[in-house]
Formats: sequence, C-alpha cells, structure tokens
Amino acid sequence: MSFATLDTSQHPNLPASSATLFSAKASKKLTFEQIATHINRNEVAAAAIFYGQAKASPEDIVKLSELLEVPHALLEEQLGGFPDRGRSVEMPPKEPLIYRLYEIVQNYGYAYKAVLNEKFGDGIMSAISFSTKVEKETDADGNNWAVITLRGKW
Amino acid sequence: MSFATLDTSQHPNLPASSATLFSAKASKKLTFEQIATHINRNEVAAAAIFYGQAKASPEDIVKLSELLEVPHALLEEQLGGFPDRGRSVEMPPKEPLIYRLYEIVQNYGYAYKAVLNEKFGDGIMSAISFSTKVEKETDADGNNWAVITLRGKW
Amino acid sequence: MSFATLDTSQHPNLPASSATLFSAKASKKLTFEQIATHINRNEVAAAAIFYGQAKASPEDIVKLSELLEVPHALLEEQLGGFPDRGRSVEMPPKEPLIYRLYEIVQNYGYAYKAVLNEKFGDGIMSAISFSTKVEKETDADGNNWAVITLRGKW
Amino acid sequence: MSFATLDTSQHPNLPASSATLFSAKASKKLTFEQIATHINRNEVAAAAIFYGQAKASPEDIVKLSELLEVPHALLEEQLGGFPDRGRSVEMPPKEPLIYRLYEIVQNYGYAYKAVLNEKFGDGIMSAISFSTKVEKETDADGNNWAVITLRGKW
Amino acid sequence: MSFATLDTSQHPNLPASSATLFSAKASKKLTFEQIATHINRNEVAAAAIFYGQAKASPEDIVKLSELLEVPHALLEEQLGGFPDRGRSVEMPPKEPLIYRLYEIVQNYGYAYKAVLNEKFGDGIMSAISFSTKVEKETDADGNNWAVITLRGKW
Amino acid sequence: MSFATLDTSQHPNLPASSATLFSAKASKKLTFEQIATHINRNEVAAAAIFYGQAKASPEDIVKLSELLEVPHALLEEQLGGFPDRGRSVEMPPKEPLIYRLYEIVQNYGYAYKAVLNEKFGDGIMSAISFSTKVEKETDADGNNWAVITLRGKW
Amino acid sequence: MSFATLDTSQHPNLPASSATLFSAKASKKLTFEQIATHINRNEVAAAAIFYGQAKASPEDIVKLSELLEVPHALLEEQLGGFPDRGRSVEMPPKEPLIYRLYEIVQNYGYAYKAVLNEKFGDGIMSAISFSTKVEKETDADGNNWAVITLRGKW
Amino acid sequence: MSFATLDTSQHPNLPASSATLFSAKASKKLTFEQIATHINRNEVAAAAIFYGQAKASPEDIVKLSELLEVPHALLEEQLGGFPDRGRSVEMPPKEPLIYRLYEIVQNYGYAYKAVLNEKFGDGIMSAISFSTKVEKETDADGNNWAVITLRGKW
Amino acid sequence: MSFATLDTSQHPNLPASSATLFSAKASKKLTFEQIATHINRNEVAAAAIFYGQAKASPEDIVKLSELLEVPHALLEEQLGGFPDRGRSVEMPPKEPLIYRLYEIVQNYGYAYKAVLNEKFGDGIMSAISFSTKVEKETDADGNNWAVITLRGKW
Amino acid sequence: MSFATLDTSQHPNLPASSATLFSAKASKKLTFEQIATHINRNEVAAAAIFYGQAKASPEDIVKLSELLEVPHALLEEQLGGFPDRGRSVEMPPKEPLIYRLYEIVQNYGYAYKAVLNEKFGDGIMSAISFSTKVEKETDADGNNWAVITLRGKW
Repeated sequence: MSFATLDTSQHPNLPASSATLFSAKASKKLTFEQIATHINRNEVAAAAIFYGQAKASPEDIVKLSELLEVPHALLEEQLGGFPDRGRSVEMPPKEPLIYRLYEIVQNYGYAYKAVLNEKFGDGIMSAISFSTKVEKETDADGNNWAVITLRGKW
Repeated sequence: MSFATLDTSQHPNLPASSATLFSAKASKKLTFEQIATHINRNEVAAAAIFYGQAKASPEDIVKLSELLEVPHALLEEQLGGFPDRGRSVEMPPKEPLIYRLYEIVQNYGYAYKAVLNEKFGDGIMSAISFSTKVEKETDADGNNWAVITLRGKW
Repeated sequence: MSFATLDTSQHPNLPASSATLFSAKASKKLTFEQIATHINRNEVAAAAIFYGQAKASPEDIVKLSELLEVPHALLEEQLGGFPDRGRSVEMPPKEPLIYRLYEIVQNYGYAYKAVLNEKFGDGIMSAISFSTKVEKETDADGNNWAVITLRGKW
Repeated sequence: MSFATLDTSQHPNLPASSATLFSAKASKKLTFEQIATHINRNEVAAAAIFYGQAKASPEDIVKLSELLEVPHALLEEQLGGFPDRGRSVEMPPKEPLIYRLYEIVQNYGYAYKAVLNEKFGDGIMSAISFSTKVEKETDADGNNWAVITLRGKW
Repeated sequence: MSFATLDTSQHPNLPASSATLFSAKASKKLTFEQIATHINRNEVAAAAIFYGQAKASPEDIVKLSELLEVPHALLEEQLGGFPDRGRSVEMPPKEPLIYRLYEIVQNYGYAYKAVLNEKFGDGIMSAISFSTKVEKETDADGNNWAVITLRGKW
Repeated sequence: MSFATLDTSQHPNLPASSATLFSAKASKKLTFEQIATHINRNEVAAAAIFYGQAKASPEDIVKLSELLEVPHALLEEQLGGFPDRGRSVEMPPKEPLIYRLYEIVQNYGYAYKAVLNEKFGDGIMSAISFSTKVEKETDADGNNWAVITLRGKW
Repeated sequence: MSFATLDTSQHPNLPASSATLFSAKASKKLTFEQIATHINRNEVAAAAIFYGQAKASPEDIVKLSELLEVPHALLEEQLGGFPDRGRSVEMPPKEPLIYRLYEIVQNYGYAYKAVLNEKFGDGIMSAISFSTKVEKETDADGNNWAVITLRGKW
Repeated sequence: MSFATLDTSQHPNLPASSATLFSAKASKKLTFEQIATHINRNEVAAAAIFYGQAKASPEDIVKLSELLEVPHALLEEQLGGFPDRGRSVEMPPKEPLIYRLYEIVQNYGYAYKAVLNEKFGDGIMSAISFSTKVEKETDADGNNWAVITLRGKW
Repeated sequence: MSFATLDTSQHPNLPASSATLFSAKASKKLTFEQIATHINRNEVAAAAIFYGQAKASPEDIVKLSELLEVPHALLEEQLGGFPDRGRSVEMPPKEPLIYRLYEIVQNYGYAYKAVLNEKFGDGIMSAISFSTKVEKETDADGNNWAVITLRGKW
Repeated sequence: MSFATLDTSQHPNLPASSATLFSAKASKKLTFEQIATHINRNEVAAAAIFYGQAKASPEDIVKLSELLEVPHALLEEQLGGFPDRGRSVEMPPKEPLIYRLYEIVQNYGYAYKAVLNEKFGDGIMSAISFSTKVEKETDADGNNWAVITLRGKW
C-alpha cells in the first residue's frame, strides 16, 4: 500500500508545518484515514491541515502531537497561527487529478449557478461554512467510483 | 420566483443553441427542475445542455422541442453536433458563486488528491464518466445548505 | 453638475439592463443620490444595480420603472434574472480611481487579515452578506475626504 | 487565543524587517492591538509596518524596539529606508479573506466610481493620503460584523 | 449518427473558408471519412483544411467544390491563400478532449525529448514535414481505443 | 554517443527522485532504451518515471535499484508516494522540441476532436488509461522520421 | 504634413467621443497644436481629451464645438460624463513609441523612486494632480530631441 | 533624514553589484545627490548604476570605489560587463510610486504619440540616446512638486 | 502560383487600409515582388505597409493608387496618418512561421546581445533606423534556404 | 574594452555549464570573437553554447577545455547532454537590446510570412537547420550598423 507523501522540493511555498507533518506521517506509515479517525475529523479536513489549508484546533494539535510523536511545542508554534490559505495549488492546476476538478468548475460552473439560484434565490454557497468528504463506491461491475460531496451554507 | 436567464450580451461565445433554449425557457417561465423532470435528467445535466456543455441525445431534442415549443429541426441543427465544451466560464471565474467552487479546488485540491490516492491508488477521477447533482438541505435552525455531489469513475 | 453616464462602446460585456438604465438616467438627468432615495437604498447599491452587480427586487423594478419612465415589462425582463456578477471591472483595473482601491487590497491585504484574524478568529468577512456606502467629509482646511465603509458578516 | 504570525517559507519576498518583527511578536505573544496601543497607531497601520507596507517613523522604531526587545540598531537598519510596497500580496489574491476584498473591488468598482464622481466631481480618492481601520460590531442576534473603513483625500 | 459541425458564434476568428466548408458539410451530411476519401487525404488532414490549418491544393479545391457543391470560384478565393495557422485552439485548451492532448505534452514532454535525443541525437521532430492520423481499435473486452500517430521528419 | 541528462539548476521543481535517478543514469552511462529493457517497460514510460510523471511499481523500484546501484530504501522513499504530475514542463513549452508537440495540439486540436467524435461519438480519449511510444523510421532517401504513437481508452 | 488620426477599427474600446472628435479633426485638417491653442490647454492635454483620458470642461466643449463644427449637444452628451480612463493603451504597449516610455519606467522605475524618496521623503508623485508637456529641441548638429516633462504634486 | 536602501530579500534578481553598492552607500550614509556630485552624473543616472540599469564607465568605477571605499577590483569585476537591463521592476509595477509612472504611460501613451508624431513626423523618441532628471519645485502655497524630465533623441 | 491574401475575419484589429490594399492586391493578382518593384521599396517594406506597420510616403500612396487602381483620396485618408504599429501579430505568435522567428529571439537573444556588446560596446541596435530584406538561396542539393537580413543603426 | 560576462544572480535557471564557461571567459579575458576563432564557429554559435542554447560537439569540448583551461571531464559532464533550450530569455524580453529583436518579430512577422510564402510557397523557415551571424558595418558618416543574418532551410 502507498501513502500520500510530500516532496518539499516540489512545494517550496507550503508552510513549515507541512514538512513537519508529512515527514512524521511517512515515518509512522499512517494513512489520512487513520489520522482522521484519531483526530475525529473527516479525511479531507485532516489532509487540509497537513497542506496548511485548515486551522488546527488546540485539540487537533494535542492529538496530532501524540499520534505523530512530534513535540507539542513545535506543532503549536507551526500550527498555532492562522492559515495562509490558497498557496498549495498553483492555478490552473497542472496535476491531472486536480485539473479534473478544475475542469468540472469550468464546464459546469454556470449550470451549478443556474440550478442553485433557482433553488435558493440570489446568493452564494459558502466555501468557508463548508464541509467536504470523499467516499468510495464500487458498482455491480466492480468499477470504483469516487464520490466527492461539497456542503456549504447558503 | 425568479428564473435563471441568459443575457447574450454577456456571453457572446456560447453556442447558438444557448440563445434558443434560454429564450424559450424565459417565455415559457420554466425552471430547470421542470425541464429536468420532462427530459428525465437531473437539473445540472439539463442546465449543462442549455450552456452547451453536454450533448443532447435525440430523445432530449425531441422532448425539449415539445416542452419549449421550439421547432424540432432548429434544435436538431443547433444541438445535433458535438459540444465544444469549456467556453461558458472564463477562468479564473469572476462570478462569486462560481469562484467559490474554484476556491474549493484551489484550497482542497491536494487534500482531495492525497485522500483519493490513498483510497484508490494512483489514477484520477474521471470528469467525463461523471455525474453531478445539487440538493437543498435545511437544518434545525432553518439555515439552508447547498449540497453538491460529484461522482466520477476511477 | 455632471452625471455618471455609461458609454456602451467601452463596456460591451455589461448586461442589456445597464444600457437601458443608464440611458434613462442620462435623459432624466438624475444622480444616483436621487435614484437611491427613490428606491430607498444607498447610492452604491443603486449604482451596483445599474452595473449589473446587484439583484433588483420586484419593488426596485417597480420604482425604477416609475422614476426612469422605462416600461415595467422591459425592466422586469432585463432585471428579473440573477445577476451575473464580476464582469464590470477587468482586473487589474485600468481606471485610476478603481486602481486605488485595488492598490489598497494589494498593500494592506495581509494587514487586514492579521487584524481581522486576531479580532474575530479564523474565518472571513463575507462579501455577500455585505453592505457598503460612500460618504463625503470636509475637514477644517476645506479638503474633501472620501470615506468608504465596508461591512460584512463574519 | 491565537496570534497572527508569519511563516517566512510562504513569504520569501517580504523585507528582512518582517521576519524580525513577527518573530519578536510571536515570542512576546503580543496582538496587533497591543502593539498599536504602544506605538499610538491604529492596528492596521501597525500591521502594515510589520508587512513592510508602511514607513515606520523614528519614534515607531524606538517604541517597537522597546516593546519587542529587538535591538534598536537592527530595527533602524531594517526599517530606516523607504518601504518597497506592493510585494506582500500576489494578485489576484489566493487567500480567501483577502480575495473577498478584491472581489468587492471587482464587483463594486464602477459603482464606487460613479457615486464618488457624482459627489466629488472628476478625480480620485488617494490611496496615500489615506487611513484605514477595522472595527468589530456584534448585532442583536449575536452575529459579528467586520467593518472596514477607508478614508482618503480627494 | 452525428456529424462534426461548426458553430461560428464560438469561433469568430476562424477564416471565412471554415464557415463555407462546414456549412456545406452539414447540409450534405458528410463525415470527414467520406470527405477524406473523396480528396484522397487522411481524415485529420481533411479536417485541418476545414479549420484553416492546412493548405488546400488546387486539386483539393476542385474536389471539395464538386463534393460539397460549393462554387469553385468561392472556394478558390477563400482557400487560395496561405493558411494563417494557429488560431483555431486558444491555449491552454478549454475543450476537455483537446486538453487531454495538451496534458500529454505537459506530462510527457521531457520524456519524449529524452528518448528522441537518445535515438536521434540533438535536433527536433518537425511539425511541418509531418503527418498524423487517427485510428480506432477495439480490444477483446469490447473497449474502444483511440490511436493517434504523429510522424515527423527529424 | 550522448545520454539524456538532467541539470537540476534548470529544473528546481522536479522531485528529489529525479536527481537521484538521473545522477545514477549518468554515472552508469545508461540509455533509456537499456533502462526500459531492464524494467520491461517502453522507453517513454521509463523516462516518465525519471521525470516524476509516472508511478513506479514496487517491481520497478527493485529493478531500478539493481540496475542503477541506488540503495533500495532511498528509491522506495523517493518513489513510493504518488506522482505529483505536471511540473516538468512549464507551459507554453520553451524547449523547441517540446514546443513542436504543443504546436501540433494548437494547430490540429479541433481536427483531432472532429475526427475522433465522428469515429467514437461524444467523449474523450483518456490521458490516463493511456500508453505512448517513440519509434524511429528511416526512409529510402536515408531521412529519419520520428513516429510517436498515443493510444488512449475512449 | 501629416495629422494624427484615429482608425476606429484598431481602437474599438475608445469612447464614442473619440470617433466624433478625430473625425472632425481629420476633415478640418487641424493639428493638436492648433486645437490646444484654441482651447487654451497644452497639446498633450488636448490630445488626452480626444483619447478619452481627460475631462473636458464645459468651456472646452463649447470651444471644441466651435472649432470642429460639431453640434454642441452631441459633444456635451459624449463628453459630459466622467472619463473612464485607462482603456486607450493595452499594456504592455505594442506601439514602439509608447513602448519606449514603458521601457523607461521598467528600467528607471526604482532609480526614480530612490531619488524621489531621498528628495521628498516617503510618498508618491501624483498622477492626477499632474501636468505634462512635450517640447522639441534641435541641437547644434541638427538633431531633434523630444523633451517630455512630467510634473506631479508630492 | 532617510537614505534609499536595498533589501536584497525583496530583489533577488538584481546583479551582485547592487548589493555591493547599496551596502556601501548605507554604511557611508550617502545620498544619491552626494554620489551623483562625486561621479559628475545626475542623480537618476547614478541610481540607475546602483540598480544595474546603466553602464558604469571606468571613471565611474574609480570614483565609486574611492567614495564608497569598495575595492576597485571588486567593483570592476561586478560593473565591468554590460548591464542586463530590465530586471529591476516587475511589470506591471506593484510599488505605488512606480505604478503612477506606469499609469501615466497607460493613460497618456497615445496622446504623447499623437503630439510627438505631429511635431516630429513618423518615428520614435529613443529610450537609449536618452537622459532624464528629477527636480523639486515648491509652489507659493508651500506644496512640493516633483518634476521629471525625459529627453530622448528623435 | 499563390498570392498572399488577408482574411479580415482573422485580423479584426488591422487598420482599414489593410483591407483596402489586400483586396485590391487579390483582384489584381499581384505579388509583393511586383508591388515592391513598382513603389521602389523592398518586398518586406511593401508588405509592412499592407499590414499597417510602416508609413507610406505621399509618393508611395500615389504609386499604390495607380498600380492597385484604388482611388487616391481613399488611400490618402487611410494611409495618411501615422502607423499604429504592433497590432498585426499577437505575441507569442501562434503562426508557426512567425513563431520560428520568435523562437530565434528566445534562444539566441542573449547570444546576440553578448556578441553585439563586444563588437559595438554598450547600446542597442535600432528597430526604427532599420531595414530588412528576405532572399532565397538554393544550394547544390536543390534545397531552398530563406535568408533574412536585419540591419539597424547602433 | 569590455567583455560580455554572466551574473548568475540574474540567471538562476541557466545550466551549470554557463557558470563554468563564463567564469573562465572572464578570468581569461577572452571575447567571443577569440573563442569563436579557436573553435572554428561563428561568434553567435559560440555564445549560444555559453548560454546553453546549442550543443557542443566533442571537438568543441576539447577546444574549449584547452582555451579556457577548464578540466575536460568537467566540461564533458556539463556539456555532454542535450541542450534544454529556451530558458535564457524570459519572454517578452525585458532587456532593451533583445526587446528590439522581439519588436521586429511583432511588427514585421506577417510581412515576413507574406513575402516568404510568395517566394517559397507554403511552409516555414527552419529555426533548427539554421545559422545566424552578426556583422558590423560603418557607413560613410561614421555611423555603425549592426547586421544580423538569419539563414534557415525551407
């Protein structure tokens, strides 16, 4: 089985916490599923902390410190501030997997807007009061389907 | 109640079919929910046809012609080819609602990739063998939540 | 006294409603202050409707129709949909006055973020549950000062 | 409580003074409110000095040296020159909070211009003879509102 | 069966010949396979003439005039000059199918270069003394595979 | 004979594995043909692993370790994660050889789409369920021709 | 002698007033020197009105109407609003003469800043409380020198 | 009094000579006025040498070595080549002071061209056979005005 | 034999004179060689007038009017002003032939600079006091070579 | 006399060989003319090797090693691979001298294409089977002219 890792030579602008966290994750051979279970968040939220895109609560820091065996003081220093979001993906994305999500926005953006406006009226779906998850489905033919759910306050 | 409309002065690069379809939708005062029910697709897919982002099947054309009272020959001419996708949203999106979706990709892109790779191995989620839908939830406090689901083959 | 006008040859991508509204405003020789008073909104919100950046309510449409002597049916058709925001200013702005606002974001962006985060915690100021106004102050030396207030939900 | 910090790996182009100041702020556990009170400026101006966007006066340097316990000579060397403004935010901003301010300029830019021109005549609001502040309001329902005021000479 | 068509509202910068040729192709209900057979070229080369990317020889013009029943003089005027290539696809491509080809260049570009250099020495593969074709393969499981071959002089 | 090498000063964003692999390749004086034979893949796939664009299987890692005499543990650490594709070529490509491939997409993109759509119907050629190879042909006049084949699932 | 003219096919985004003014200038065969003398402004300011970059005062409109024999009502309608500046030159400039000015900013920008800061302290030179002129000098060898003077309030 | 300094963390692409010269200028507490007097050039030209935008003559190098007490051999090595101009300002400029000059080009570019063409005929003002200077004027009300003069051969 | 023509649908920003001149050239079936001979200029200069990149002298206008049988008054009106250069090629060029020239600048730019500086000292080659020509050479093997010469004042 | 040198702080993306070669050139005080004579190439080709834009043959490496007194093994390692061309000039070029060449392509690109097509038919001038040289001419008035010749296979 493979684990998601971080090659810092490819991501020089990620925060210092990303290197700390991913390095520990690799030596502990932990998946995000295991990490998420431990900190009681869903996997995407857990991964978002690793990439500097979500704020870790004091409890998250305590639990990550335990699980990853990283000194609490170091994690607190590196994760204690406010995330400087938006620096992990250079847009348009070059990574094919991420590009597919970008392409969905490009192709379906106005369709989403039209349907959302008709359902909810004028306004937007928040990207902040927001949660998201990834699930795996396997159909009768044995094909795997990735299901991503976005849930945002109107 | 408001209906999603198209102002062609703002979208000069959409296909000719978009003007035809939206013009009929406005005079018929139909929502995408009503249209989707009639052609037996979900709302986002229906709207995607209107924006030139999805291929209408011969059955779709027949049903749209009936519902919208647009001559079948005209619709067939305008919708019979293959969609030239990707022209409806200029990236990065300027529309705030669509920008929020873009922002989700920008912020969570690598988190999705990490979780998907750990769950499915190397590969991508298809944006073509793909379906998507929008749902409305209302929580106990009366707040509305928009739920967007993306489901793509791995 | 001069009135803000719209030269459509400079703004080909604004919605059809912008041409209708500005044309009537020019022939009626009305300021946004007068229009705002009539529709009971602040001036910036009124101007935002003219530029296609805010949704006009049914009451707004009735009152604008009266004041500007534009047929109600025409305004309803042009303003009845959902605004397709973000198309009035091409970024980075070329207009010096608008560029100064852009420059404020460029120079003070992180200072705002730091102060807002320390005052409110992690999160953002909404640009949707949001109001803004412009006021004029004259100091003791007779200098005029423009005061712009942005008020957004956290 | 969290303090705004600086992760220099994410901001390699900020001036050397930014690293000095933020490092001291973190070890002293000071908020910008406390720093602003000490140097008798408002919080945004104080933060702008930390991000290299405003010139520190000799008095500012003395007071910052005292409060932060940074040698006066070092601060004078790093803050004594003229700010090379504009390098803290890469435009368009990727940070969601800062993007919302950018979006306000994008959406309301011409509305501001129209109202300002009608109120003040031709000209611009200075972004240099300029002050700005952030305030927190809590409404009857307990919701917090961020209020940003921009005040520039015409 | 569907035919590839051209919606000129989506391609305002294609040459006048493109509109002429695609309009005739649609009314004649011809595929590029049929057209290619008639002018004795491969399908991609035939399509490239339709999109203004390849020069039509005098014989091509005669045969296209016959097959499409377009006056020879008109075709000669519109196709007689030298192609002004490169205007059909705006890069990066927004169309998902074309983007996939772009992505192959993005991902495999240096791998191709390394292998080509080791096989051929320093130099390049010409994109002018060049031919290309598309073939369809169906494997044992009934899956279709598209095979694109590029052949260029070194 | 010359070997394809990597000058890391020109490619600072490639993964750490690229430096390891190319350095060993240079000291071993191996071509991609030899490496491909050893790991039983085609040359382009082998080169893609070197540039961080393809996932190395556990078997690939074992064989590369043997052939290149690089410690297995190091290769496993550097190649064991999931490739972060798309960072090797900055688009548009500056390298003339790679630009020619880009130019083919720019010029023939819509021709490929038209022919593929007519042959396969609506859809795309996958760039993931995909293989590619490079071959050398010499014609009767002694000219060399590079033949690149792309084969993707529809 | 040649007169500066406007080819509207090259400048579709200039305001309607530009076409009116340049058309009259051409048929009257007037230079900007003659026009500037008539309206009692310097030549660059006069030309700036023609390109929509400066506000014409009511007196300017009267005088231009007389000199150019354009109906006063038409000029008032087209010039009576507030200029929407910044649309005449697309940056970076493609016109070689204008590019040279851009190049001066690119090469000397920081040198100007350093000298201005040392002479005036922190701040900027206004581009609004600003005047500029062009003069011609001929040296002893008969060479012509263009002298452009920029004068802005600090 | 403040001196213009260089923070190399903000200008990593300036030549090595810039760091040498600015470092010496700071420790010697010299203004560009003093330096310019010493090397008998105007201030902007002196500053341009410091930013790597102008070639230092052998005499300049001797005098700068004396004044700044930098070893002549070091200065000769760093300044003896030909300037690689254009790297000091990233366009469009982010620095507000430099942006104002850019804005002048953006707004007045065609006005300058029109007036210059009418005065001098077809051609351009050289940005190479060129000199420029900055002067300070104080008007009757005590306001300071910056006057920048550009003088280029036609 | 083919003649270079202009498809105005591909070049909407060329001056009105371009359409006039190319239309007459096509109906007269003239090459640039014939036109150049008639107006006594080299071919590239003649073509540059057709593309709006060079100023036509009064004599050029007379001779072009005769040769092309276009009314002198029309040509004088369209060509009598000053060229607004730089609008014929959108950079980077998409046309393969023009891209090759761009690529030469990209690849050899610093090599030219180094050699020119060593031969001529600091300075530039003028692109205005400049002439250029195209010649055809055929070598012993019957291969054709295009020779482009650029000659600019230092 | 001045020699062309390389300041690596301005060119961090050039290959390692560039630093080696330019460093030796500077200490040996050699011009490209002398180097070119020694390796029996023209000056531009010699400079192109120094900037990593041309492949050095084994003979070139031997001769450069001798002349520059650089160990042969080091040069072979650094120059033995295939050039990764296109990284020396960032487009559009900022350097004024190189920009003038870019400007020639921008202004004359279509004129060259038209003349070349009429002389040679459809096709392109190769930028690979290509040679170029720089010559110096002095006219009767003592003015120097730079003459650049481009010669490419059709």
